[in-house]
Amino acid sequence: MRNYIILGKYPVLEAINNNSKRVIKIYIIEQNLEFLQNFKHIKYEIVNKNFFNKVSTNKDYLHQGFAAEIISEKNNIKELVKTQKNIVILDSINDPRNQGSILRNCLAFNIYDIVIENKYYNEESISMHLASSGASMKVKIYEVSNINNAIKELKKNHYYIYGLDGQGNKNLHDANFEKNKNAFILGSEGYGIRKNIRDKCDDLLKININNEINSLNVSNASAITLYEFNKKNRP
Amino acid sequence: MRNYIILGKYPVLEAINNNSKRVIKIYIIEQNLEFLQNFKHIKYEIVNKNFFNKVSTNKDYLHQGFAAEIISEKNNIKELVKTQKNIVILDSINDPRNQGSILRNCLAFNIYDIVIENKYYNEESISMHLASSGASMKVKIYEVSNINNAIKELKKNHYYIYGLDGQGNKNLHDANFEKNKNAFILGSEGYGIRKNIRDKCDDLLKININNEINSLNVSNASAITLYEFNKKNRP
Repeated sequence: MRNYIILGKYPVLEAINNNSKRVIKIYIIEQNLEFLQNFKHIKYEIVNKNFFNKVSTNKDYLHQGFAAEIISEKNNIKELVKTQKNIVILDSINDPRNQGSILRNCLAFNIYDIVIENKYYNEESISMHLASSGASMKVKIYEVSNINNAIKELKKNHYYIYGLDGQGNKNLHDANFEKNKNAFILGSEGYGIRKNIRDKCDDLLKININNEINSLNVSNASAITLYEFNKKNRP
Repeated sequence: MRNYIILGKYPVLEAINNNSKRVIKIYIIEQNLEFLQNFKHIKYEIVNKNFFNKVSTNKDYLHQGFAAEIISEKNNIKELVKTQKNIVILDSINDPRNQGSILRNCLAFNIYDIVIENKYYNEESISMHLASSGASMKVKIYEVSNINNAIKELKKNHYYIYGLDGQGNKNLHDANFEKNKNAFILGSEGYGIRKNIRDKCDDLLKININNEINSLNVSNASAITLYEFNKKNRP
């Protein structure tokens, strides 16, 4: 198990503030030291700005003079399915900014467990961490090699599977979410949930939108769905 | 009034499909010509891939062999305020991807009129057009130099002004939206709505979220708010 680096003031401070046991070390420019005042227990090293360009090849980032070395954490879906937790599953969503934004929505609406295919997930993606606004340090990611197998496990363990689909059979605002264990599958921008996965859903939820537009962005669709679920599930 | 260029298959096809009177000319690679089959009335020119790099300095784009020259359209808020239309106002939101995503949400939930300060709006932003998924061609943008003045106009014309604010006085799900003319103000990521503007709102709406996270992304907050408004306003 290797460590990885995240960048940016907010992701770094969120990491130490909320899950400092995953943080090995902070790399910081001198002017930013004041931000570590409340985190005396954290190991840090003062670096200059060139450091940040060396630790990442990602051009789409804003380091703001902050970096953190993080312990990579592997979670096992076989443990997850035995719990009562509600979960979100990402099917073929490869845009890190969408991924991060969805993690942020999950946390905002009390979902802490997210399943994603390992080929689409890069835990080192700075765009993902930035878009998650710290949520990536608080939720648990379950990397799987095959979502179909994950769904089989979920069904065996009495999960009710919702897919988000513009052509769904049920309007989101009519969904009552009466089951104890719910999983929400989100599909890729453009293609939606793959057919063989869609066929395994117990319900396909659709959000009523103006027919002048094809679809919502997947992150926005997740925000609406999880908001509605949270409202009905924890009134 | 000058014209501008947008790039990308979906924005370009959306533009000619939905608002072809704003499209002056298409620039397209030969392999993509088939996509113009149903648009015989549109003027086009076949170009090679180098063309696209020349027409844009924006590095954050995906041209996909499509460009369109668009007529810049200026809309006047003094006309808007006399109507019964519901509107969205962007305060200091300068991320083009958030802007585009918000336009997409507006259209999805039947809001066609968006007010934005001209210093934050670049109608040529490819990221904005791509994120809007075509919505930027269908909604009307009202560029203003000062949002405070715009709000004065709205109030004079009997608009009810909602601000989205994590510290708001009213939960979104308790809002009934009983007024005829509604304006929704969205603030910038990180800072929210500026204080002098927040003070002018009739209600500040908040979305209940887990206290483990500071806020929602502004585009996601707009999606949830406009979804809820649309549901209650057009049941």
